Amino acid sequence: MRWTQALIPTLKEDPAEAEIISHKLMIRAGLIRKLTAGAYTYLPLGWRVLNKVENIIREEMDAKGAQEILMPALQPSELWKESGRYTALGEDMIKFIDRHGKETILGPTHEEIITDLVRGSVKSYKELPLILYQIQVKFRDEIRPRSGVLRSREFIMKDAYSFDRDTASLDKNYKKMYEAYCAIFTRCGLKFLAVEADTGVMGGDVSHEFMVLSESGEDTLAHCAKCGYAASLDKHLLNLNVKKDFKIETLDDIKKIDKGDKCPKCGADIKLEQAIEIGHVFKLGTKYSMAMSAKFLGEDGKEKIYIMGCYGIGVNRIIAALIEQSHDKDGIIWHPSIAPYTVAILPLNTAHQASMQAAEQIYKELTAAGIECILDDRPERAGVKFKDSDLIGFPIQTKGSK
Amino acid sequence: MRWTQALIPTLKEDPAEAEIISHKLMIRAGLIRKLTAGAYTYLPLGWRVLNKVENIIREEMDAKGAQEILMPALQPSELWKESGRYTALGEDMIKFIDRHGKETILGPTHEEIITDLVRGSVKSYKELPLILYQIQVKFRDEIRPRSGVLRSREFIMKDAYSFDRDTASLDKNYKKMYEAYCAIFTRCGLKFLAVEADTGVMGGDVSHEFMVLSESGEDTLAHCAKCGYAASLDKHLLNLNVKKDFKIETLDDIKKIDKGDKCPKCGADIKLEQAIEIGHVFKLGTKYSMAMSAKFLGEDGKEKIYIMGCYGIGVNRIIAALIEQSHDKDGIIWHPSIAPYTVAILPLNTAHQASMQAAEQIYKELTAAGIECILDDRPERAGVKFKDSDLIGFPIQTKGSK
Repeated sequence: MRWTQALIPTLKEDPAEAEIISHKLMIRAGLIRKLTAGAYTYLPLGWRVLNKVENIIREEMDAKGAQEILMPALQPSELWKESGRYTALGEDMIKFIDRHGKETILGPTHEEIITDLVRGSVKSYKELPLILYQIQVKFRDEIRPRSGVLRSREFIMKDAYSFDRDTASLDKNYKKMYEAYCAIFTRCGLKFLAVEADTGVMGGDVSHEFMVLSESGEDTLAHCAKCGYAASLDKHLLNLNVKKDFKIETLDDIKKIDKGDKCPKCGADIKLEQAIEIGHVFKLGTKYSMAMSAKFLGEDGKEKIYIMGCYGIGVNRIIAALIEQSHDKDGIIWHPSIAPYTVAILPLNTAHQASMQAAEQIYKELTAAGIECILDDRPERAGVKFKDSDLIGFPIQTKGSK
Repeated sequence: MRWTQALIPTLKEDPAEAEIISHKLMIRAGLIRKLTAGAYTYLPLGWRVLNKVENIIREEMDAKGAQEILMPALQPSELWKESGRYTALGEDMIKFIDRHGKETILGPTHEEIITDLVRGSVKSYKELPLILYQIQVKFRDEIRPRSGVLRSREFIMKDAYSFDRDTASLDKNYKKMYEAYCAIFTRCGLKFLAVEADTGVMGGDVSHEFMVLSESGEDTLAHCAKCGYAASLDKHLLNLNVKKDFKIETLDDIKKIDKGDKCPKCGADIKLEQAIEIGHVFKLGTKYSMAMSAKFLGEDGKEKIYIMGCYGIGVNRIIAALIEQSHDKDGIIWHPSIAPYTVAILPLNTAHQASMQAAEQIYKELTAAGIECILDDRPERAGVKFKDSDLIGFPIQTKGSK
């Protein structure tokens, strides 16, 4: 891509709307623009990053035998009544009455929809196990959208759902997804922790959150450096047999609980850390299949209830979390796997013919070799070009002057 | 992919909900399932087709220098008031009041949003011309959703928008998009016509619709075999200087108009044909940029109004239109470019070890060679396998028996 033909509206100053560094840098580097509260447009560079993250997710999901589908955002409220979750999400759930008077929900998640799909399309144990996933837009009317794409009202989620005949088979699928998540986040360049987590509104009994340590995160986890114990704060309190009916924010707060500052596994000191949740996997069990009568014909000829799992990744959050972890005073430092372009070619004097010819030659050869590069052919000063390239954070920058 | 591990719920019988052949076959072949009125889930095979269509669109748009972005579905109603279109779509537009009392629109199209984006991000004629596009989900509360994915309430659109300094430059971009559309539809295997069209609610003065001839289409076009004149019925009536205040459905109706059944260009007989609209390109001119004060700094240092174009493709419609044109009594006949898998390998007796070994070997070699194939490893009768493969319509079927 030639810079003069690209839409890359970089900004010199931090935007007033942004508080955390990833939000500031995503706007300044021309990756996103706010349309309305909690809804962002991905500009060409931002879209390229998003697309690369999505493709990494696809590759790792497919490698585990998961099959991609695409479910609608418009959902009939009947299914939510059937599952018993109609009121569980409170005002976060967006509903509207359509022109025929029917209540419709803008999908905040798809457990009900996938359970309805599978109960209508799968008949026998022979068709199991099954993992289906989608990369799709979700809607939640957050009371306070903030932190850019970290907490927005419209966001992209990779949501996967597994269907099994028994818990042993669910355990295998859960392990597969856990491994896929580790591979995805590693390939995106994230340093992350998988922690025991509470199952909350999703239900089920076992779950893990994938957390990226960051000061901008809204989540807290308890971590033991000695034995590796790691749990979300909610789960840690459960592990300590403590109900969370008081406010815990710091290690001092938790010291007030009997042995609250000790690891429940090995007794060593624990540490509380702020974190960003980027993924969450759940062993749901029969919560949805039981409520919605989702059955298959077992090997013994009898009807059985599906054993389910669900597995979510906040696609947009991966990008913000990476920037939170990987930046310096000049801008973003991309992992090459998800950088908008791998190489930036910066001819520092476009009026100098030999320099421009050399730059064009490099651009041509790299492009022919399948390496994604951007040629900064703007007749701008060297300082402007350096600043923009550092701000956006292209992994390799080839600078040339006469 | 091994059939036993895939979700391919084919049906022997036509579903009661479907009237037209593409709708019937998309359900029977296990490509889609209805969730609620006008909202369909794409199952694994359907998703693969959708993904291939999207990638063909991307390649041809990128080849013309268009840049991909992604805009939100949630839109502030203020922008629609600013453009003057707040009431133009009537009850088709889905609105809701969010938890803070703010009216929000579920985007039926994005002219307002892109105009707002560009007026905020582009400053100078030096950054023009510009073509931005997205492949994104749209929402319209159709009064009568029907014909499967042909007229649904939630659908995927490729919408592109061009921004130019003058009409000569718009003409160039319009031509580029027109050419890209021809390339896209041709690569998908469609036989189509580009016809003059009325600009309707979008505004502007020049537009072309891309039409696929089909009995299931809801649109009518006037076509002259002699000189190539082709216009949508609305535009044809405009060309004849006739207002459409009476009902025209057949050639007999149009004969009642003075010279209504003659080509306005060459005077030869015209033919009326039913058709499916798969794409529409518009020279919008200044309709949105004027109403929304979207300006750039011209070469003479003065502020100018953008000259705009917009270019839509109904992504889901490409699939249904192809099936309408390309099927036989046994099922779908895919063009190889968008088939869910290119090759189906059908070992007809999975219990016969040598047959299965040969099938596995073919599967392995083709997959290694990058050819997408499906191995029907189900222990089913040959008849079942033939029927399913013909129904889905894999371009190449390799059948083997002991």
